[in-house]
Amino acid sequence: MRKSVPLLGTLMLAAAAAALEFAEAAASSIKELADPRLIDDLVAANRILYDQGVVDGFGHVSARHDTEPARFLLARSMAPGLVTADDIMKFDLDGDALDPRGRTLYVERFIHSEIYKAYPEINAIVHSHSPSIIPFGATNVLLRPLYHMSSFLGTGVPIFEIREAGGLATDMLIRNPELGAALARKLGTSAVVLMRGHGNVVVGVSVKQVVFRAIYTEINARLEAEALRLGQGEVNFLNAEEAAASSATNNAVLGRAWELWRQRALGGS
Amino acid sequence: MRKSVPLLGTLMLAAAAAALEFAEAAASSIKELADPRLIDDLVAANRILYDQGVVDGFGHVSARHDTEPARFLLARSMAPGLVTADDIMKFDLDGDALDPRGRTLYVERFIHSEIYKAYPEINAIVHSHSPSIIPFGATNVLLRPLYHMSSFLGTGVPIFEIREAGGLATDMLIRNPELGAALARKLGTSAVVLMRGHGNVVVGVSVKQVVFRAIYTEINARLEAEALRLGQGEVNFLNAEEAAASSATNNAVLGRAWELWRQRALGGS
Amino acid sequence: MRKSVPLLGTLMLAAAAAALEFAEAAASSIKELADPRLIDDLVAANRILYDQGVVDGFGHVSARHDTEPARFLLARSMAPGLVTADDIMKFDLDGDALDPRGRTLYVERFIHSEIYKAYPEINAIVHSHSPSIIPFGATNVLLRPLYHMSSFLGTGVPIFEIREAGGLATDMLIRNPELGAALARKLGTSAVVLMRGHGNVVVGVSVKQVVFRAIYTEINARLEAEALRLGQGEVNFLNAEEAAASSATNNAVLGRAWELWRQRALGGS
Amino acid sequence: MRKSVPLLGTLMLAAAAAALEFAEAAASSIKELADPRLIDDLVAANRILYDQGVVDGFGHVSARHDTEPARFLLARSMAPGLVTADDIMKFDLDGDALDPRGRTLYVERFIHSEIYKAYPEINAIVHSHSPSIIPFGATNVLLRPLYHMSSFLGTGVPIFEIREAGGLATDMLIRNPELGAALARKLGTSAVVLMRGHGNVVVGVSVKQVVFRAIYTEINARLEAEALRLGQGEVNFLNAEEAAASSATNNAVLGRAWELWRQRALGGS
Repeated sequence: MRKSVPLLGTLMLAAAAAALEFAEAAASSIKELADPRLIDDLVAANRILYDQGVVDGFGHVSARHDTEPARFLLARSMAPGLVTADDIMKFDLDGDALDPRGRTLYVERFIHSEIYKAYPEINAIVHSHSPSIIPFGATNVLLRPLYHMSSFLGTGVPIFEIREAGGLATDMLIRNPELGAALARKLGTSAVVLMRGHGNVVVGVSVKQVVFRAIYTEINARLEAEALRLGQGEVNFLNAEEAAASSATNNAVLGRAWELWRQRALGGS
Repeated sequence: MRKSVPLLGTLMLAAAAAALEFAEAAASSIKELADPRLIDDLVAANRILYDQGVVDGFGHVSARHDTEPARFLLARSMAPGLVTADDIMKFDLDGDALDPRGRTLYVERFIHSEIYKAYPEINAIVHSHSPSIIPFGATNVLLRPLYHMSSFLGTGVPIFEIREAGGLATDMLIRNPELGAALARKLGTSAVVLMRGHGNVVVGVSVKQVVFRAIYTEINARLEAEALRLGQGEVNFLNAEEAAASSATNNAVLGRAWELWRQRALGGS
Repeated sequence: MRKSVPLLGTLMLAAAAAALEFAEAAASSIKELADPRLIDDLVAANRILYDQGVVDGFGHVSARHDTEPARFLLARSMAPGLVTADDIMKFDLDGDALDPRGRTLYVERFIHSEIYKAYPEINAIVHSHSPSIIPFGATNVLLRPLYHMSSFLGTGVPIFEIREAGGLATDMLIRNPELGAALARKLGTSAVVLMRGHGNVVVGVSVKQVVFRAIYTEINARLEAEALRLGQGEVNFLNAEEAAASSATNNAVLGRAWELWRQRALGGS
Repeated sequence: MRKSVPLLGTLMLAAAAAALEFAEAAASSIKELADPRLIDDLVAANRILYDQGVVDGFGHVSARHDTEPARFLLARSMAPGLVTADDIMKFDLDGDALDPRGRTLYVERFIHSEIYKAYPEINAIVHSHSPSIIPFGATNVLLRPLYHMSSFLGTGVPIFEIREAGGLATDMLIRNPELGAALARKLGTSAVVLMRGHGNVVVGVSVKQVVFRAIYTEINARLEAEALRLGQGEVNFLNAEEAAASSATNNAVLGRAWELWRQRALGGS
């Protein structure tokens, strides 16, 4: 037992050196991809959205590139809850990967490419099957802000019906630029667009803002459904002015929730 | 304290050697049972279904044998969340265990034997009391695909009423081949059959597919009930063509969710 | 650092010896109280009921003494989730503690004493505010078995209205033998009695059975409420014969769920 | 490996000494702020309310100072789940921080200052967006005690409509003393006041009591909504006398739940 210690020590030192070398190489490659802080935020966003129940094995989150506005960052095709910095890839606005190296791509990357193409002010996008929102996409009940945390929903959000753009027999996915462009048009100036029989898309000016919005859209959907039952259809929503004022206020405190969510999802500080 | 170290070391080495011997014997016995990768998937399926809330202390999951199509693998009678490779047994299509060694068998193993007998293309089966599905079995509300993740539900699933095959005073269990055969007939070409006052059965061509289907059947039931209330009965479901196209698409990405679920339920990679 | 090891070792050995002495004394005292296996089951029951969401900081579970039928075991007044063997006390059927040693008693111990007095076949009792059951106690909707796991509910359970026995201004608690006796009469031959505006009581022939029943009463309440909404009042419950047959069957497999729950709540085996 | 031990030991001793010094300095500064037991309770309250789902990244809890009744304690602006003793600050009844040191303050501290100013008997306040309560604030359905755990709700709680005091275009926040005073008036003698489109405020005579009330207000809201559906509007609530008697009883057992919640949220004893 004691004899094995020096050998074990040597092996551990060698392993540590190898790990360090690998980490340095990886860090260097990440630095070339984009600002490491943006990549760090994007990885955290993937983990947070999983930890908070917005995404499960499916769904994705992207960020517009920090110095190249016609590029965006998105993980390779995988569960968001397992994404690391090494999984982040760079795409152009046609949805093509710039350095694919044989990695599998999300079929629905055109959600991101077409929205970034259409709306220069949008810098971050979440696509999910966030559960409480699905029933709103499948009925004609308007998703509206029940309380100030979801005030970014404004006066209600549009629903994208894929049958209008893709016909009656699609597989429901945004699998080409044309469907992505139709979805982007439906989004308009809203922060959220629902997708009938599928999920939703949330947009924002930053990764932190889009994560905040995705989480509170899910919570609002759950609480609005409950309020509509409780009030038998009579519910007092935020009016347009309250929603606008509150949304501006919330943008100043996004970091307070982000720190908590990040610590929960990733541990440490 | 220090003196005890060499003794402790000796004891630990002896224990390690014994553990290794035991593990080798167990591994050898598992290899004789079936392809170790299939057994590994089946153990993971037991743990995943528990971790995801599809099964609790009850329920079971089986797989058709990889080289002997008239045999299937199923744990001894125990909670799925505690199953290990050593608990997996081999059965024939009459529901008899080939090497029982005194182990207790699931009373309802005939669910598996009769479905494998009737449908050669089915290679994996889950039986559970998945909670959100129970209310659908006890009413005449059709379980249908609300969104693309549950598109395998097609145009809706049948309900098995045990009173038709077993009379008015059963204990609700599929405790003989006759009841198993009646249940298999009710399943037909569907991926899921509900059992009134009991639970449901989900089938698939692989362990990964049947786990995916069992999890999303539970989620769909919860969301469909919610949508029916929200829309006061007016809900826009996937149509038959959308369901078929989407189901084919999903079969290509089962692994993405499986990796996440496996890691959550079993840890490590 | 290395120098401190022998000192640390000495301290640890001394601490270990003291801990052993204390543990032996405690074990001896527990052995005098009742069969250690019964106490172990009762402690596990407290922890399981908390882990499964049947009790929170309040609620209690008792067992009739294994050799003295006019005595029962119940923890001192504390949160069930923190109960250890040392907290278990012995009571007589008037609800008096036999060796109080200044410990605080549950105000509502008369729930237990009066039911044990009235029903010799009952050996274990759970009182809780199990959440999903509260709405049934506050309405006139009958709690009935929706599926075989809750078949012990038979053809439905009675509701205890404290205003009948205690008047219009009680604090809702069973704080004396008279209220306990009235509650015991309302229970009758049922496995469960609801308490309006308060909670419920579940009884059984063993600790394992009463824990099983308490957990599945909670689940049944949640699913029955859901089924009544989904079916708009039309729900197909187990009939009396199915409930009786299924309940007999379940009594043979209580251990399967118990092992899982115990391991979750207490860890180890 | 072995050589590094003495060095490691030295480093660890140095680190431990530094940590001790820091802890002593911090402890000294906390002692000057208020009774350390009150600060400890307030920190625990922050963590418990997060752990129990009453607050998320937002919401706050305060305590009136133990020796200076015109002062209260409240964390700096941050997520309650991350609050430590070092984050607690002292405020006067105008909502001004006495020793701000550049720290960011909660915009809504006037909720606390104005309620402490108006009601000398109140010693602790929770403001949250506790989810199940939001639908009650957005409808005209009265929040009432469904069971004895929430008997402090009495005969029902008032709703604060910010449009009455702040007009039709606020950002929903209590961002000045005038709005705080209007909210305090609406509270009246109730233990809880709902805020339409925002959240609620709970008050108590102690930190332990206000935490108990905040948690059971959330649970009651969930169960009352369920009971109203189940009973189709016909629900048997506690009457005024039952609520008063039960509330007095509960005040004697707050510690039982507190110990459990504290241990869950903070670990250890």
